Amino acid sequence: MKRYIPEDTIKRLPVYLRNLLNLKKEGKFLASSKEITVPLNIPPEQFRKDLSYFGQFGKRGVGYDVNNLINILEKIIGIDKEIKVILVGVGRLGSALIRYKGFSILNMKIVYAFDIDPQKIGKIVDGIEIKNIGEMEEIVKKEKIDVGIICVPANNAQEIANLMVNSGIKAILNFAPVVLNLPKDIFVSYVDMASELGSLIFKLKNL
Amino acid sequence: MKRYIPEDTIKRLPVYLRNLLNLKKEGKFLASSKEITVPLNIPPEQFRKDLSYFGQFGKRGVGYDVNNLINILEKIIGIDKEIKVILVGVGRLGSALIRYKGFSILNMKIVYAFDIDPQKIGKIVDGIEIKNIGEMEEIVKKEKIDVGIICVPANNAQEIANLMVNSGIKAILNFAPVVLNLPKDIFVSYVDMASELGSLIFKLKNL
Repeated sequence: MKRYIPEDTIKRLPVYLRNLLNLKKEGKFLASSKEITVPLNIPPEQFRKDLSYFGQFGKRGVGYDVNNLINILEKIIGIDKEIKVILVGVGRLGSALIRYKGFSILNMKIVYAFDIDPQKIGKIVDGIEIKNIGEMEEIVKKEKIDVGIICVPANNAQEIANLMVNSGIKAILNFAPVVLNLPKDIFVSYVDMASELGSLIFKLKNL
Repeated sequence: MKRYIPEDTIKRLPVYLRNLLNLKKEGKFLASSKEITVPLNIPPEQFRKDLSYFGQFGKRGVGYDVNNLINILEKIIGIDKEIKVILVGVGRLGSALIRYKGFSILNMKIVYAFDIDPQKIGKIVDGIEIKNIGEMEEIVKKEKIDVGIICVPANNAQEIANLMVNSGIKAILNFAPVVLNLPKDIFVSYVDMASELGSLIFKLKNL
């Protein structure tokens, strides 16, 4: 990919894809940009602009072939084949994420979960056996897994991130409320629920 | 508040506060902007600029009074008094959020949880009794609660959001993977875990 793709465009791709999958489920074969974007509260022009970074896919006056656009978006995002994901930290949030159905819709699957707690190791959560964190490196290398989710407490997150990087993980979704120090070539996203809620309250009180 | 405050500044306020609370726990009374920001991978200049929207709080050569800055940030964000929050949808994610300790650190507390499932209503999760969604409006009005978290499946989220707005909720944190159609004066934030992970995979595959 040569052109610069704005971060917001990247964030919207899975959102478009998810709605296209909904339209497919409803039996739609063709959809206008409005049909794709109105349920998302995104202007159709934005959608067309976002897509234009990757090519020309719709037909004027006809709209988009839903199945075709699904295939294209899956390829663009890189989820045309199922993406294997590991998760470390099987607490309440970790267990909820293992069971979360929203990942599989987008062809991403948590295939291994790890913890350090002997009480948890060996237990099965939604068909996934919780393994000892000590086994992570070997499994990640053997299975060539690129993507990891961190759900451990804040004070363990950096250590787990280092372990992941050493094992070959290249993209990390971090739920621990702490900023990770990572090599430049590792991609990381943060889900910081408390600070999201805090920002909302700031707006409510101030704006 | 008269001046325009950038969205990113707002998002960083709870993050600064959380690290100041850490420093306090470690027994620090004074902290430099570096000590506050290095663990967050945020440049100290950014921190000073963010704070400057609200006033002058540090002393050159001395640093920041940790306790004082905590009080100030809590007031700025609007969490100097505990903020009561309701949650609707006590599935796996909802239960995990009720038990999540990260909210209370920032003085926000889920005080009521609601569901529609008779199997769940009446059960206690981490000290919170799950109530019938039919009771929400009365409770929210009586207790003057402003903030709600939505954890229901995507196809129920709009209906729950409408109910919340009708009850007087003014700020919504939405975990359902769907965009809500809300009056202009309602603040909303989205936590969309699958699309975060999807965007990460896009970057991994393309950049």
